[in-house]
Amino acid sequence: MSFTAAVSGASGYAGGEVLRLLADHPEIEIGAVTAHSNAGQRLGELQPHLHPLADRLLTETTAANLAGHDVVFLALPHGASGELAAQLGDDVLVIDAAADHRLESAADWERFYASTHQGTWPYGLPELPGQREELAASRRIAVPGCYPTTILLGLAPAFAAGLVEPDDVVVVAATGTSGAGKSLKPHLLGSEVMGGMSPYGVGGGHRHTPEIEQGLSWVAGQPVQVSFTPTLAPMPRGILATSTARTAPGVSEAQLREAYAAHYAPEPFVHLLPEGQWPATKQVLGTNHVTLQLAVDTRAGRVIVISASDNLTKGTAGGAVQSMNLALGLPETTGLTMIGAAP
Amino acid sequence: MSFTAAVSGASGYAGGEVLRLLADHPEIEIGAVTAHSNAGQRLGELQPHLHPLADRLLTETTAANLAGHDVVFLALPHGASGELAAQLGDDVLVIDAAADHRLESAADWERFYASTHQGTWPYGLPELPGQREELAASRRIAVPGCYPTTILLGLAPAFAAGLVEPDDVVVVAATGTSGAGKSLKPHLLGSEVMGGMSPYGVGGGHRHTPEIEQGLSWVAGQPVQVSFTPTLAPMPRGILATSTARTAPGVSEAQLREAYAAHYAPEPFVHLLPEGQWPATKQVLGTNHVTLQLAVDTRAGRVIVISASDNLTKGTAGGAVQSMNLALGLPETTGLTMIGAAP
Amino acid sequence: MSFTAAVSGASGYAGGEVLRLLADHPEIEIGAVTAHSNAGQRLGELQPHLHPLADRLLTETTAANLAGHDVVFLALPHGASGELAAQLGDDVLVIDAAADHRLESAADWERFYASTHQGTWPYGLPELPGQREELAASRRIAVPGCYPTTILLGLAPAFAAGLVEPDDVVVVAATGTSGAGKSLKPHLLGSEVMGGMSPYGVGGGHRHTPEIEQGLSWVAGQPVQVSFTPTLAPMPRGILATSTARTAPGVSEAQLREAYAAHYAPEPFVHLLPEGQWPATKQVLGTNHVTLQLAVDTRAGRVIVISASDNLTKGTAGGAVQSMNLALGLPETTGLTMIGAAP
Amino acid sequence: MSFTAAVSGASGYAGGEVLRLLADHPEIEIGAVTAHSNAGQRLGELQPHLHPLADRLLTETTAANLAGHDVVFLALPHGASGELAAQLGDDVLVIDAAADHRLESAADWERFYASTHQGTWPYGLPELPGQREELAASRRIAVPGCYPTTILLGLAPAFAAGLVEPDDVVVVAATGTSGAGKSLKPHLLGSEVMGGMSPYGVGGGHRHTPEIEQGLSWVAGQPVQVSFTPTLAPMPRGILATSTARTAPGVSEAQLREAYAAHYAPEPFVHLLPEGQWPATKQVLGTNHVTLQLAVDTRAGRVIVISASDNLTKGTAGGAVQSMNLALGLPETTGLTMIGAAP
Repeated sequence: MSFTAAVSGASGYAGGEVLRLLADHPEIEIGAVTAHSNAGQRLGELQPHLHPLADRLLTETTAANLAGHDVVFLALPHGASGELAAQLGDDVLVIDAAADHRLESAADWERFYASTHQGTWPYGLPELPGQREELAASRRIAVPGCYPTTILLGLAPAFAAGLVEPDDVVVVAATGTSGAGKSLKPHLLGSEVMGGMSPYGVGGGHRHTPEIEQGLSWVAGQPVQVSFTPTLAPMPRGILATSTARTAPGVSEAQLREAYAAHYAPEPFVHLLPEGQWPATKQVLGTNHVTLQLAVDTRAGRVIVISASDNLTKGTAGGAVQSMNLALGLPETTGLTMIGAAP
Repeated sequence: MSFTAAVSGASGYAGGEVLRLLADHPEIEIGAVTAHSNAGQRLGELQPHLHPLADRLLTETTAANLAGHDVVFLALPHGASGELAAQLGDDVLVIDAAADHRLESAADWERFYASTHQGTWPYGLPELPGQREELAASRRIAVPGCYPTTILLGLAPAFAAGLVEPDDVVVVAATGTSGAGKSLKPHLLGSEVMGGMSPYGVGGGHRHTPEIEQGLSWVAGQPVQVSFTPTLAPMPRGILATSTARTAPGVSEAQLREAYAAHYAPEPFVHLLPEGQWPATKQVLGTNHVTLQLAVDTRAGRVIVISASDNLTKGTAGGAVQSMNLALGLPETTGLTMIGAAP
Repeated sequence: MSFTAAVSGASGYAGGEVLRLLADHPEIEIGAVTAHSNAGQRLGELQPHLHPLADRLLTETTAANLAGHDVVFLALPHGASGELAAQLGDDVLVIDAAADHRLESAADWERFYASTHQGTWPYGLPELPGQREELAASRRIAVPGCYPTTILLGLAPAFAAGLVEPDDVVVVAATGTSGAGKSLKPHLLGSEVMGGMSPYGVGGGHRHTPEIEQGLSWVAGQPVQVSFTPTLAPMPRGILATSTARTAPGVSEAQLREAYAAHYAPEPFVHLLPEGQWPATKQVLGTNHVTLQLAVDTRAGRVIVISASDNLTKGTAGGAVQSMNLALGLPETTGLTMIGAAP
Repeated sequence: MSFTAAVSGASGYAGGEVLRLLADHPEIEIGAVTAHSNAGQRLGELQPHLHPLADRLLTETTAANLAGHDVVFLALPHGASGELAAQLGDDVLVIDAAADHRLESAADWERFYASTHQGTWPYGLPELPGQREELAASRRIAVPGCYPTTILLGLAPAFAAGLVEPDDVVVVAATGTSGAGKSLKPHLLGSEVMGGMSPYGVGGGHRHTPEIEQGLSWVAGQPVQVSFTPTLAPMPRGILATSTARTAPGVSEAQLREAYAAHYAPEPFVHLLPEGQWPATKQVLGTNHVTLQLAVDTRAGRVIVISASDNLTKGTAGGAVQSMNLALGLPETTGLTMIGAAP
């Protein structure tokens, strides 16, 4: 093993998934494993599926405990990573799974997160144009949100090729409940969740909206407006995003398919499925894989892109490890499986 | 009891739900209960939840067996009801839960159902303008599809009041698996369904698309174009529809809320929820109730309407019984509960 | 409506289910609806499925607020009902859904509930021998636990007829998550519950164990020992109990079937299914119905009885309303449906 | 890669899981991938989660197609493997995931499988005493059933140490739906499965009963009688088994814990959890891991052992690969992960 890594927020879902991936990563030795209210407990009590790490003791999430590692993963509530990162050396690779350093616009940050903007770090989505190189040279990486990851990968080729209009993108997505973390809220109880669907953050209020618009605007080279509606589905993991945009005049489904196929041909983790086959979240659970398919509804004048991901893997911890690999000079796919368990 | 009713397709989900509602209906006596491949079996073997009807024997679905009742419910595969209805007297109230008689356009029928159009019956959605009166006078009723019911109720007030644009409606909806009936297909197995989401009929191909456009065009008084994407959710029942349309110039959320509140004030089964509260399918399971909420995304220039229903109750059998009540001159709400079991 | 009823604990699952049943009960007018931490809220915010009651305001759970009704339902945490009931008149029918007054043995109470025993009330399971008459004459009723209801109904005929041995009963049961109420505990989150099974209270530690033994001992006329293991299943509602006992020498399956059929022939809510058909929780969800089936494993020398119930209906609120009907002199089945929604 | 493997039944759940594990196995190159009715299709159409193998074509399951590999996995319906195996060379390692060669007793085979017994192969559960050595020397291996694996591992230490009575073992277990394979039966539809529990094979009729008794009898050195009741749970994967046996006179929980801890100390895949922590299926999904915990109910005179497994991994394909590793002289844990994705 060539590098050591510390993982904070290890009792949560994001931290647990980072540990799951690092435990099988051939170049990483797991060092400090930290938490807040659960410090002092064995990891096995909180994350029993991480059996080989069961006897690790959770220590307090402090800069002192996180220091001395090559890589530090921050899987903390929003707002906590800025101060902590400032206390870690500039040569330490700090990978922040929270939203704190994703947005360029301080105004957007303040509007959607109601706190002071802590600055912007390179955005950990290597599949965006130019991003891979930036990440390779960085010691600070902001892991994208799970919805933005899934939706940006779904729409980027269309915008990069100029095949869709930027002013009326409509996205509706369904997520598994782990996207809400382990917070103890009544509507997240199993009794409430199982057997039903519900929306939230309707009307532009979800915090991922400005992040989606930011990413699409980068790719499009002009401002993109998105109507984004997230829904909560009765499943632990997975995101299924339905992203639609008006096609530019004269654009055909064949053109779009060609653009997508070309765009993702070199990518190890993102695939346009063969015609006739559609993404489904269970294809990608536990993996860093995103599957895509598209159709043009000529009557409605829109392209509909479906993209499926695992919100905790490619949408959080897998994306984080992928960016880590780049920043450490490792092959990008190291330790990232493409096959999950199904059904 | 004042009327007798026969139910065909009694071994399926739609037929079973019709029987569930009729069993508690104070004015209906259940007569013949028929099926196709399951004829000869006890109902209790196929629909064990209908305990008080367990010892009823399923007879063959033939005109002879269905004759002699005041009401006949047809819950058959698409294409089977035209011929059967022709053999039932004109004075018999025939309520068709299949799609056969929903569409006015023979061209749409032929395109989406690949068979010969059998004509159009009054459309059993009493909440559409003028529809209640038409149903009261009819002996033939086409029960709307579950998606169209949910989406039309979600968008009708906005179109009726001219507050949205007709040319770029985008709808994404999630349904429970009972929407697909009891057909034995691999993707409907529990192992495949549980824990995942998947899309189907993307790009305008779903058969409910022309039906949604037809209903909205009626209300709008002009052609309405819809991009409709259905998805399959890991739950047995329920539809959650996210319907968005561009707001007409200068239209505010307050205006829309007012229009919806006024539109549905007299309706017993459709309710705009109080501000801040959102529809969820578990609010309405097992009932004839549809809940609504809306928000205007001013950045995107769209209103987003969320509507929740039970695909088998208001979306099929409950809507059928509601129309039956009207046609029989009974109070519209007879035998239709507004409270389901939750969680 | 002939009687008024107050419901405390109205924001929880048990209280919500009592309200659901009372809302459709032809002889009950719902009066005060009370809660603790949620007092002051609209019921619609907490129990949105109870649509017709949405605008009711929750008041504090105090004796003053509960006074002045013919019936008071207590759906409170264990330990809270004794003091409250003492402040309600002796002529008020008080129905306690908590465990406080179920156990005759103060020693068992103190061992399993770690508090002072508050006395014993008539046990609200009318199907036990002699119980119906006692309930009809009582103003204080202890609603049985959901597991005891399901298991006692499953084994009572065998013990009443002396066909099984009392000293080695083994029961394993699975419950839906609503059995744990709305308590905000990590292991009850949807993310944790969906897709998995887990046991709890293994080794005799579950509080329902002494209640099951008490009930079986009543029926058997001698002490009965039970090994009871409950498990948590990924579903909101329902109990499936597998109860096994060693058959007495020479006892055949036919004898047992005959005893069960005879025992439950007069009962409106409990049914031995026809041979070859097995109980499943979805047959009985939302109803006051319990289904049973049995088999004798001659190699193992045991009878295995399967019983299915809805933990919130027959297992809590339905059983409570059934006992209320008896105590008010109403037909026992008033307001209690036998048909729930499925699938 | 040192060895080549062919996988038959590749369109089913067992075959798919074998492929999932082999795809990440460092010493195996996947050769022929065969099926019956799905021959001719791309694997990606049937098993989309096996993305790196998506373009493999399924060929017919014939001896010719399976020949020429070092290892052949048979994941076929019961009754099909005997004839096929006879056509493969004696030096080929044939691993049969079906039941055909598990039972020593031809009488039991004929009674439970209603066909001619095809002989007995070494039983692929290396954790049973003496079994590891036998498997290492064998070219024919019968993969145990998923229930027997979970239950035998749960009870073996108690019987090996003589701490429990052999004549009254009671087991109740819950399985995920993938245990029933992809067969298109109405009760396996998602609509039927989700939200409910049901039993099957009650009264000793399940085919795994003689296999469980056979394994326990081996370990106990005397005949063991088991009452086994399987139930179907609303989850795709996982088995939770509750196995109880009467403790021998004077045996304490401490003695049993000590025996279990010692028995499994050298085992890589089976673990007694720390006191106070209980097995749950989600701890082990996708892994070859089995977790155990026990409690003695002194009132009932029984030990209750809970064991959790993944029916498709340790219960089928993982156990198969573990046995393959032994037979090929590889380290037993090669290619078998101990960490699955959760939640």
